[in-house]
Amino acid sequence: MRTAVLSEDLQLQIAERDRPEPGENEVLVRMRSVGICGSDVHYYEHGRIGDYVVDSPLVLGHESAGEVVETGAAVDDLHVGDRVTLEPGVPCGRDDCEYCRSDEYNLCPDVHFMATPPDDGAFAEFVAWPADYAYRLPESVSLQAGALIEPLSVGIHVCRRAGVGLGDAVYISGCGPIGLLAMEVARVAGAEPIIATDVLPSKLERARERGAIAVNVAEDDPIAAVEKATDGRFADVVIEASGAAPAIENTLDVVRRGGTVVLVGLAADSVVPFDTNEIIDNELDLLGSFRYRHTYPTAIELLANEQVDVEGLVDFEMGLDDVDEAFRRVQSGETVKGMISFD
Amino acid sequence: MRTAVLSEDLQLQIAERDRPEPGENEVLVRMRSVGICGSDVHYYEHGRIGDYVVDSPLVLGHESAGEVVETGAAVDDLHVGDRVTLEPGVPCGRDDCEYCRSDEYNLCPDVHFMATPPDDGAFAEFVAWPADYAYRLPESVSLQAGALIEPLSVGIHVCRRAGVGLGDAVYISGCGPIGLLAMEVARVAGAEPIIATDVLPSKLERARERGAIAVNVAEDDPIAAVEKATDGRFADVVIEASGAAPAIENTLDVVRRGGTVVLVGLAADSVVPFDTNEIIDNELDLLGSFRYRHTYPTAIELLANEQVDVEGLVDFEMGLDDVDEAFRRVQSGETVKGMISFD
Amino acid sequence: MRTAVLSEDLQLQIAERDRPEPGENEVLVRMRSVGICGSDVHYYEHGRIGDYVVDSPLVLGHESAGEVVETGAAVDDLHVGDRVTLEPGVPCGRDDCEYCRSDEYNLCPDVHFMATPPDDGAFAEFVAWPADYAYRLPESVSLQAGALIEPLSVGIHVCRRAGVGLGDAVYISGCGPIGLLAMEVARVAGAEPIIATDVLPSKLERARERGAIAVNVAEDDPIAAVEKATDGRFADVVIEASGAAPAIENTLDVVRRGGTVVLVGLAADSVVPFDTNEIIDNELDLLGSFRYRHTYPTAIELLANEQVDVEGLVDFEMGLDDVDEAFRRVQSGETVKGMISFD
Amino acid sequence: MRTAVLSEDLQLQIAERDRPEPGENEVLVRMRSVGICGSDVHYYEHGRIGDYVVDSPLVLGHESAGEVVETGAAVDDLHVGDRVTLEPGVPCGRDDCEYCRSDEYNLCPDVHFMATPPDDGAFAEFVAWPADYAYRLPESVSLQAGALIEPLSVGIHVCRRAGVGLGDAVYISGCGPIGLLAMEVARVAGAEPIIATDVLPSKLERARERGAIAVNVAEDDPIAAVEKATDGRFADVVIEASGAAPAIENTLDVVRRGGTVVLVGLAADSVVPFDTNEIIDNELDLLGSFRYRHTYPTAIELLANEQVDVEGLVDFEMGLDDVDEAFRRVQSGETVKGMISFD
Repeated sequence: MRTAVLSEDLQLQIAERDRPEPGENEVLVRMRSVGICGSDVHYYEHGRIGDYVVDSPLVLGHESAGEVVETGAAVDDLHVGDRVTLEPGVPCGRDDCEYCRSDEYNLCPDVHFMATPPDDGAFAEFVAWPADYAYRLPESVSLQAGALIEPLSVGIHVCRRAGVGLGDAVYISGCGPIGLLAMEVARVAGAEPIIATDVLPSKLERARERGAIAVNVAEDDPIAAVEKATDGRFADVVIEASGAAPAIENTLDVVRRGGTVVLVGLAADSVVPFDTNEIIDNELDLLGSFRYRHTYPTAIELLANEQVDVEGLVDFEMGLDDVDEAFRRVQSGETVKGMISFD
Repeated sequence: MRTAVLSEDLQLQIAERDRPEPGENEVLVRMRSVGICGSDVHYYEHGRIGDYVVDSPLVLGHESAGEVVETGAAVDDLHVGDRVTLEPGVPCGRDDCEYCRSDEYNLCPDVHFMATPPDDGAFAEFVAWPADYAYRLPESVSLQAGALIEPLSVGIHVCRRAGVGLGDAVYISGCGPIGLLAMEVARVAGAEPIIATDVLPSKLERARERGAIAVNVAEDDPIAAVEKATDGRFADVVIEASGAAPAIENTLDVVRRGGTVVLVGLAADSVVPFDTNEIIDNELDLLGSFRYRHTYPTAIELLANEQVDVEGLVDFEMGLDDVDEAFRRVQSGETVKGMISFD
Repeated sequence: MRTAVLSEDLQLQIAERDRPEPGENEVLVRMRSVGICGSDVHYYEHGRIGDYVVDSPLVLGHESAGEVVETGAAVDDLHVGDRVTLEPGVPCGRDDCEYCRSDEYNLCPDVHFMATPPDDGAFAEFVAWPADYAYRLPESVSLQAGALIEPLSVGIHVCRRAGVGLGDAVYISGCGPIGLLAMEVARVAGAEPIIATDVLPSKLERARERGAIAVNVAEDDPIAAVEKATDGRFADVVIEASGAAPAIENTLDVVRRGGTVVLVGLAADSVVPFDTNEIIDNELDLLGSFRYRHTYPTAIELLANEQVDVEGLVDFEMGLDDVDEAFRRVQSGETVKGMISFD
Repeated sequence: MRTAVLSEDLQLQIAERDRPEPGENEVLVRMRSVGICGSDVHYYEHGRIGDYVVDSPLVLGHESAGEVVETGAAVDDLHVGDRVTLEPGVPCGRDDCEYCRSDEYNLCPDVHFMATPPDDGAFAEFVAWPADYAYRLPESVSLQAGALIEPLSVGIHVCRRAGVGLGDAVYISGCGPIGLLAMEVARVAGAEPIIATDVLPSKLERARERGAIAVNVAEDDPIAAVEKATDGRFADVVIEASGAAPAIENTLDVVRRGGTVVLVGLAADSVVPFDTNEIIDNELDLLGSFRYRHTYPTAIELLANEQVDVEGLVDFEMGLDDVDEAFRRVQSGETVKGMISFD
């Protein structure tokens, strides 16, 4: 079967691999739609993310959906023909793992996560995956939307971490997929107003279409904008999804006293000078948000109920053969989401 | 009446002031016991804390207890002879104050707080105070303990912010009054083990007496100590009460993945370089804790139930006339708590 | 000034009263719009609600909005001409009241609440009210909507008690004002689907218009309806707003295992036989919800943001002179909300 | 191997069974200590608990600890010789089980639970059990204490459900194992005072030894006792562990306004008439508590830290051959906990 493999010298090419056999508790999924994530592009450009280094050929991709074509002997709740989305992180599940023992499985240190070295990802014609991490999609949810449940999950987890609620003023820095999907979820959870920032007019336009007050921080002062939009109260919740150091620093200035800042955008240069006395004096909650847990069922409900839009993020769809071109196109900052589709 | 006043040139002297009249909703309290807080000493040494500047003579002191000697016309739940402790911060209570409207009254921007310019404090023979912020002490609670309900409240609020619970491993940096009282409260809330750090052997001894694993960070590696004490799990909760920059930076290294760091010690030089990616990757909660709210009734119960010890913190007691000597003695790092007593 | 007074023999008549003077911390409000609540009607019919007995003439009404015409000497955040809504419950605020001390002020046992004997209500041309419990309305919020912030507050508090969140299946029994407004708030908080029940087709139609699955329990089995609407999962949250004994009993059958039932509708005959083993086996949360706290600012935001509709509840508006006719019309079960308007 | 089997005609006898083989992910445990639970006795007396009927021979027992004597091929975190306690409920773990998908695994409808028909329990010389539900005991925790982690877990879960915290007044009805262990945990979580009720002087003595105010409800009025012990505030938290109908009804009278009642004791006759208006007017939380989840690691820590005492509950220890006599002795209400020990 064909896969899109990133070699150690950072060439992204189609390669033939053996079609996998599903294990006893696995399903074999014929991939239909896989999104290109910023982390995929980061590996493509730099060959590493932090301590994770591409030192042998790696199949990229972790936002995926497809059809079940074979089931392992012990699988009885999924069947051939089921349309599924795959949760890309499979925690160790061992009883000596405190995170698998509690409900914080996203923090399991021994998780296997698609397209994170050394685990292969989903740009492949077939993927064998544990049935427990394959979720059946209702008919009303498309396979493309199913693939985008992965970034939507990040948005759900961020909003849960922040406790976004009725009438909260939410400030979101960064209008990439995570920022825009956090915005979708915040809106569903009752947030209003939502102030979104970026430096690219095309991305800000996407935020504006979704009902946010869009602020171009290259031109306008975000602090003044928040002050105005909230009648001087500032934001109840700040979601930092850009990873840009100035935006991270800014979070403490746009949040209200007693408010919550959630950091989700990994920073290129991550050592940010924080005024810790401000955190104390204003009694802030500064929270990290890492991937997600228990989000897939909720995400499927939000899509089935048509409460959120994920397909509107997609700029283009290309075939697997054009994966390198697709990656290059995503590298341009203007793209929000590119998809690889399989016939 | 006599008061201890800090002049603009940072002289601390006994001065005569008019005995105040209680307002309609106030009680007049004959002071009996007032603690010297680190913030009092900071004004004494530097004439300011951040934006709060001593630009006219200021009565210091905000950890206080005494006896009601007169009640305002509208006060009917306190009586002459009642022994009371005074909550030193009185929020504005206005309906356009979102913090007074919600339960976060400690964040009221228009709070009047004893011994914070321009509001006078409690080193005075008599203080008139709103009856709603004067709490009757049960017989079993001494006036000295009553005065120390103020720092105990800080410890309660920190532990509530952190959500300290059953069997939590708690790491506390700084064994001054706040660190030691947070330790008392954490123990009552079920924390075990408690690892406490400082650089002064005498303070570490105080922590050890209270059941903590005491680590001198001038000699030993706190990260290794936490790792050992928790069998490699690291701390569920970290309470930073020292205000020392290296200790603040260290918090991210001693907390477990998914754990909570509460900052309560204000830093001299507060801009600390934080690795925000670590906050994200480990999904940390980094929380500020500012003063306290709704703590006085709980503190009184903990004392009446003999669940916590506050009087064991006290190194010495002096009369009002010796206030300057008392302040100088507290300036030596070895002192945990000095008290001024009134005959 | 004219008021609508309920006498001890349950006659509701226009009576002349002295125009009140605002106290130091009060505003005098020229009433503009006041809603008729079920509790007003209950006093009108029965002369009592539980232990509260109409044993001297009582001015009814507690859903009110109007214009400030005079301010007390100490009031500086409200001004003549401000359009305000009045929070009808004013807690005692004393320091020995544990509910006023904590944030649970709705539970203060010494609250003064409009139109609850012996406290007069708002069917009066002028009302003097503590400025702290008078909330300024933004221009975009009408006075009628302002009056209906009171029942909207009940709906907000219910949803907060229940913790309604993203994608929750919510079952609401009773499509009167409380049921319908809880529905509005639940929808804003991300609930989907919402199943609403009643026995009156006209009320069910109101629920259907607001996007709910409406079930007439006189004709159809609500348990089967919930099972179908949730694919057999049953309701995450049940809100009981009818006060009907069969509906109260039913709550345990329509909620999912581990779900939450909130009781808000007071029952005529309130001793309901509950299967407590079912509460244990299914680990249910069965919660009472009493009035509201800290809801007015949120309600104003929800209205200003046009996130909820309250005016759609109103069936008719009459002048003060027609108050008796208005009450009789509300007695017919078909009416959802009647308003008294003042010129 | 020998086991204690309850036949359909409710005879409890020693029977020979084949020694089980551990599956790939299982450990084989040589039992050392197994407690007799009230539910075991209930099956022995009545042959059923609700819908669970003993219609074929059943091995009883689910409070167990022993030594690993063999490990399945895929088990690498437990080894022969490890001392372990077994969590008796193993949820289905399937991806279409919303309770296994979320963290509420105790509510999994397809759980296998020891000694609940048709699943056998732990009164057997050897038990094969999933390694993920076998927890290694530290050296300082005895095997007897390890077995009692099961009822301790019930106590932990109850206190977590109730949110027991600093200085809470806690009322516990029923001084059997669950009541006494909930008391232990409540004390560790900061509760004070604790008021415990029963009708048997011997059990009340056990509560008194553990620091509770013990009230014999056959002689004294519990409502008056709570009022006195709390200075008229009543209980913040009520834990109903007796299953007695009058005690269940009483819960609403001893809890403070805004307080929490947790029901954990299953009632023989479970339909209790509740005054639902009282639940609303006092804004109570009435919560069911079913078994436990995520408690074993916490319980092990509490024991290793010597924060709780479980062995003090034990009245007697007998060998497997005397199991029938042991059951008869437990039937007398005076016994708190009987243990079967294996040589």
